[in-house]
Amino acid sequence: MSKHISILGSTGSIGTQTLDVISMYKEDFIIESLAAGSNLPLFVEQINTYHPKKVSVANKSLAEQLKPLISSSIEVFYGDEGLIEVAANTNATFIVNALVGSQGLKPTISAIEAGKHIGLANKETLVTAGHIIKQLTQIHGVDLLPIDSEHSAIFQCLNGESHSEISKVTLTASGGSFRDRSRKELVGVTVEEALSHPNWSMGAKITIDSATMVNKGLEVIEAHWLFDIAYDKIDVVIHPESIVHSFVEFNDRSVIAQLGNPDMRVPIQYALTYPRRLKTSTEPLDLTLLGRLNFNQMDYERFPCLKMAFDCGKRGGSATTVFNAANEVAVSRFLKGEIEFLHIEKIIYKVLEKHDVKVFPQLDELLEIDKWARVSACNVPSSS
Amino acid sequence: MSKHISILGSTGSIGTQTLDVISMYKEDFIIESLAAGSNLPLFVEQINTYHPKKVSVANKSLAEQLKPLISSSIEVFYGDEGLIEVAANTNATFIVNALVGSQGLKPTISAIEAGKHIGLANKETLVTAGHIIKQLTQIHGVDLLPIDSEHSAIFQCLNGESHSEISKVTLTASGGSFRDRSRKELVGVTVEEALSHPNWSMGAKITIDSATMVNKGLEVIEAHWLFDIAYDKIDVVIHPESIVHSFVEFNDRSVIAQLGNPDMRVPIQYALTYPRRLKTSTEPLDLTLLGRLNFNQMDYERFPCLKMAFDCGKRGGSATTVFNAANEVAVSRFLKGEIEFLHIEKIIYKVLEKHDVKVFPQLDELLEIDKWARVSACNVPSSS
Repeated sequence: MSKHISILGSTGSIGTQTLDVISMYKEDFIIESLAAGSNLPLFVEQINTYHPKKVSVANKSLAEQLKPLISSSIEVFYGDEGLIEVAANTNATFIVNALVGSQGLKPTISAIEAGKHIGLANKETLVTAGHIIKQLTQIHGVDLLPIDSEHSAIFQCLNGESHSEISKVTLTASGGSFRDRSRKELVGVTVEEALSHPNWSMGAKITIDSATMVNKGLEVIEAHWLFDIAYDKIDVVIHPESIVHSFVEFNDRSVIAQLGNPDMRVPIQYALTYPRRLKTSTEPLDLTLLGRLNFNQMDYERFPCLKMAFDCGKRGGSATTVFNAANEVAVSRFLKGEIEFLHIEKIIYKVLEKHDVKVFPQLDELLEIDKWARVSACNVPSSS
Repeated sequence: MSKHISILGSTGSIGTQTLDVISMYKEDFIIESLAAGSNLPLFVEQINTYHPKKVSVANKSLAEQLKPLISSSIEVFYGDEGLIEVAANTNATFIVNALVGSQGLKPTISAIEAGKHIGLANKETLVTAGHIIKQLTQIHGVDLLPIDSEHSAIFQCLNGESHSEISKVTLTASGGSFRDRSRKELVGVTVEEALSHPNWSMGAKITIDSATMVNKGLEVIEAHWLFDIAYDKIDVVIHPESIVHSFVEFNDRSVIAQLGNPDMRVPIQYALTYPRRLKTSTEPLDLTLLGRLNFNQMDYERFPCLKMAFDCGKRGGSATTVFNAANEVAVSRFLKGEIEFLHIEKIIYKVLEKHDVKVFPQLDELLEIDKWARVSACNVPSSS
């Protein structure tokens, strides 16, 4: 029995690796639809390889450029509505949401409402609207399977275990591109320096988020929602090698950890084939080759964004929405060269400071707040 | 609902820790019977605390000494028959076999035939007669739960997983008391040096077995039987800190590991309460306090006993019986000061050399072979 799949964000880092996995198990998967942004050459190649029935790109002009390059039997959509079409209106039973940023929210909601199971690489979805998404998955009986390596690790550590016996969930953090720099040494760092992650080859936004530790903050919030774990039971440790992907401590002080060489294809495949574990082409882990694994305490003064994420998570409701939206704008301003690296955290802080948290906002309120936070983050002066 | 339990070897290291665990959860357990060797003062204390209905000691003279010291309503047995009485003829549904050496075999068989589930700390049982024990547990629908920290770790790593998807099981080995010594530096080591294990406080026999790596060899054979894993899928790595208790690699190269501070009460309790995980009094694991975990390749030339164990395991049948019996005698001769430390491996090798392996021996044949191996091991001269 083949599994019918749609991929949102197919030309990105997670999207292409998802297709890598699927190409290994061609018989097991049928690609119903694909959505990409603006990388047309790669998207055309993917479409001509995997023959989806529906595709979507960022805007109308790209859609027009795409049409002559692919089979006329393929329906072409674009923009936010195109994403929803690809996510919700196909025969797919499983959606891989590998979009970047909070644009992943609406198509995820549409897919859940259409009863499709979700493989979630887009952590901003749960950070922006965790309480809404969780409620919808329960109403529609939909599985939310993590694709992020840390959350996949926790998910795997919880196999066969009882939720009530969890005493602590610990996310590991590589420390990102500036792990070994003090805060003083962060002044004046370049975009290029920030983009060179020591262990993982990822997209630009998540690489910057690793350097600011915002990424780990988003993961903490995502873990809270995915696994229904209180924030005071979530911990973060620095683990430079990114071999132990995360671990869970139970009531009896027994700790279960998931390890592996850093290769996103493993968690991607696990989400696609769960509960089966099929062979992957990744190298087996040899701990004796590495020799040692290091673990250091998280320094919340060195990485204030992670502290902010925990604080926002504990306040709940719209606080994490604002945290995420302000960060998205700040990172985009940094990548454009508009602001200093250390200004990212300042922008998040300033926007949060101006926000009155709503604890149980409805979706439309959240989207308004998200918009407000983005405008506010744009308006924070570049040197303040 | 209380669980009715019998403990074989209650005054030993595993036995006393089993009672520690039970004393934390008095409501959950009823001690049906206890068997000890010759430590009467401690045994009397245990009997008067836990009020078993039947008890057994090593011999008739000890039984006579014991009777006036405990309630006259308690039935007192002794010797091999006493062990079987305590193991099989009570209302217990679960037997903790914490005996030392191959004396654990017969009472385990009796308990299984009486339909009692087994918590197995006595690894020699499976090493001596793995194929017989496995067959009996299947016939009688009995669970065999590991108590050893390594096997408990593997058992925990397999929670919720599929046996057919296991690609490798790796046992960790601390390296024992002489981890950092070369073979040359082992000449003339004393019994006291051999008895000081770096991480675990254990009985004398197992501490010597750790130093020779025979213990890991027995564990490899035990893992083969407990988890039905081929020997070429079992690996051993040196992990000096004894924090990662063992790990399992699956088809997808994902590795699940079980970690914790070295404290036998955790695996003991897990066997007693499985599948529940109750609180323990052990310290939580803080990887950042340790800072690092080290892993080194196993050196089979430095530790030839482990190589012999794998070879015996692969040959199967009576080979592991002889390996174990010869080792028991050799260790006992070393502890008595009769032989050099490095002579332990020579005795095992010489006895194995003289043995014609039977692949599917019956129990009585095995016991004959076991006896032969012991006599042969006694007869190997102390300097050859």
